[in-house]
Amino acid sequence: MIGFIGFGEAAYEMAKGLTQEGVTGIIAYDPLLIEQDMSHIIKEKMTAVGVVPCADAKEVAIKRELLIVAVPAQFALAACEAVEEDLTASHLYVDVSASSPTVKKNIAAKIAKSNGKSVDAAMLGPLTVNQHKVPMFISGDGAHEFKKRMDPYGMNITVVSEQAGDASSIKLMRSIYMKGTAALLMELLEASRELKVEDQVLASIKETMEAVPFEQVVNQLVTGTSIHSERRGIELEGSLELLEQLSINSVMTQASKTKLDYVSQLGLRQSFKGNRPSTWQDVIDEMKVKLQANKAGEYHASK
Amino acid sequence: MIGFIGFGEAAYEMAKGLTQEGVTGIIAYDPLLIEQDMSHIIKEKMTAVGVVPCADAKEVAIKRELLIVAVPAQFALAACEAVEEDLTASHLYVDVSASSPTVKKNIAAKIAKSNGKSVDAAMLGPLTVNQHKVPMFISGDGAHEFKKRMDPYGMNITVVSEQAGDASSIKLMRSIYMKGTAALLMELLEASRELKVEDQVLASIKETMEAVPFEQVVNQLVTGTSIHSERRGIELEGSLELLEQLSINSVMTQASKTKLDYVSQLGLRQSFKGNRPSTWQDVIDEMKVKLQANKAGEYHASK
Repeated sequence: MIGFIGFGEAAYEMAKGLTQEGVTGIIAYDPLLIEQDMSHIIKEKMTAVGVVPCADAKEVAIKRELLIVAVPAQFALAACEAVEEDLTASHLYVDVSASSPTVKKNIAAKIAKSNGKSVDAAMLGPLTVNQHKVPMFISGDGAHEFKKRMDPYGMNITVVSEQAGDASSIKLMRSIYMKGTAALLMELLEASRELKVEDQVLASIKETMEAVPFEQVVNQLVTGTSIHSERRGIELEGSLELLEQLSINSVMTQASKTKLDYVSQLGLRQSFKGNRPSTWQDVIDEMKVKLQANKAGEYHASK
Repeated sequence: MIGFIGFGEAAYEMAKGLTQEGVTGIIAYDPLLIEQDMSHIIKEKMTAVGVVPCADAKEVAIKRELLIVAVPAQFALAACEAVEEDLTASHLYVDVSASSPTVKKNIAAKIAKSNGKSVDAAMLGPLTVNQHKVPMFISGDGAHEFKKRMDPYGMNITVVSEQAGDASSIKLMRSIYMKGTAALLMELLEASRELKVEDQVLASIKETMEAVPFEQVVNQLVTGTSIHSERRGIELEGSLELLEQLSINSVMTQASKTKLDYVSQLGLRQSFKGNRPSTWQDVIDEMKVKLQANKAGEYHASK
């Protein structure tokens, strides 16, 4: 039923999980199959989970219509090019690599030429823990079909749109928040524990973050910052001083100050005449207007 | 009943609110009272809310035992020094300035010499909106007494400890998180809206942030990052590339990557032998051990 192109950790874990769900007829190709000293290791891994090895990617594409391409991001485009001639209108090409939205869109364009359908898939957790059940965002013209075909096997798929690149974009944006929050927490917890106020700090943040739904927290923070960025930037100097006194790495707090100063310089407070706008969208749209006006100003100034 | 030292926006709004709650006998001194051209303006403001002006700070300290000192942060220590000789064991000295924990501790030490009690108060919201009901964290040996005396007038006071400096420290740590989160949100929403995936991005973050209580989110993010910081730093490169493609300011994402790289270099993954520790406290404590070991190493290397 399924052909894997690339058989590293991701494909191995998915194949293992899907086989346990009763999927049969999985075949796969991996470049290591043709490296003499690695060939037997990768063959063993395939056969251990009931997967039949193929001589090359073309063979996989010819023998199977559902292709899951799980190669390192830098090889995603080449993997597509290796099989594009063999694709037909019946093919469903699913790229689960961690490639950029641009690469995912380029792949989708190639697949569209063959009249096949494609999926930009972004995995949002560790395969080794979740196997085929790893949370997955997908987009592209083949997204709904892929979800429909895989749901019976316990996969945890969310269709985000029919536009290739969207799933990967969401993953990368989500990363900014989740990894940024982790980085912020490490900084303030290091200092708070040193000051022995960690429990009260967390309790106070929890109270604010859980008082209203997340979308409301977002609105409050973004609209408030749009008009109070200057004052808040100055207030952060106190936090920075304290981190310095404690000799604690302050890279996140410094960046927050820089960002607030950047927002101040855009002049959003003036745009909104000091009145908090209603929604975060108002703020982001006005930022864009200001940035474009600044660019136009620079253009005119440089003439 | 109350004497204010400093009568700027904060004191004015508090006095106004407290007067409406039925507090009488408020007196106040502000340096502007002795500046000829400003004197009548500040006097009018005081009398408008039923506050009697005083000739100097000493007069306030002699006439009232509950002193609320609301001066700009840089004058907080001088304000204390101006009255310390006049303080008695009956005095309760409440500093609501935005001074650093160190300044707050210095003030507390001075007050302790007079056998009076002191309060380090940190205001956590806009006075103009909340007046005397502004959320306030307080600490110090006079904290419980101040709360007991002011609660009947609708003030929103949380005692955090009996140690001066703690209230201010909590405010500054809380700031790192709240302002950092605002800065992160602006960055990712600017990009997400440009890519037209903003709704899905926010929905995905909401799901993760609201799935478990905040303290559990903290634990997951910090313990996970302690052993996966290297991989997560590399993953952020994708987000950075995308921001660059979109010409969007990426100062927060860059800092997050720098912070993750910093954590990787500490070698926490090796400390925990690749196994996620149980609590965020384990991570922060190990960071401290590693930093001290590094410093000792540098010391020995430089000998």
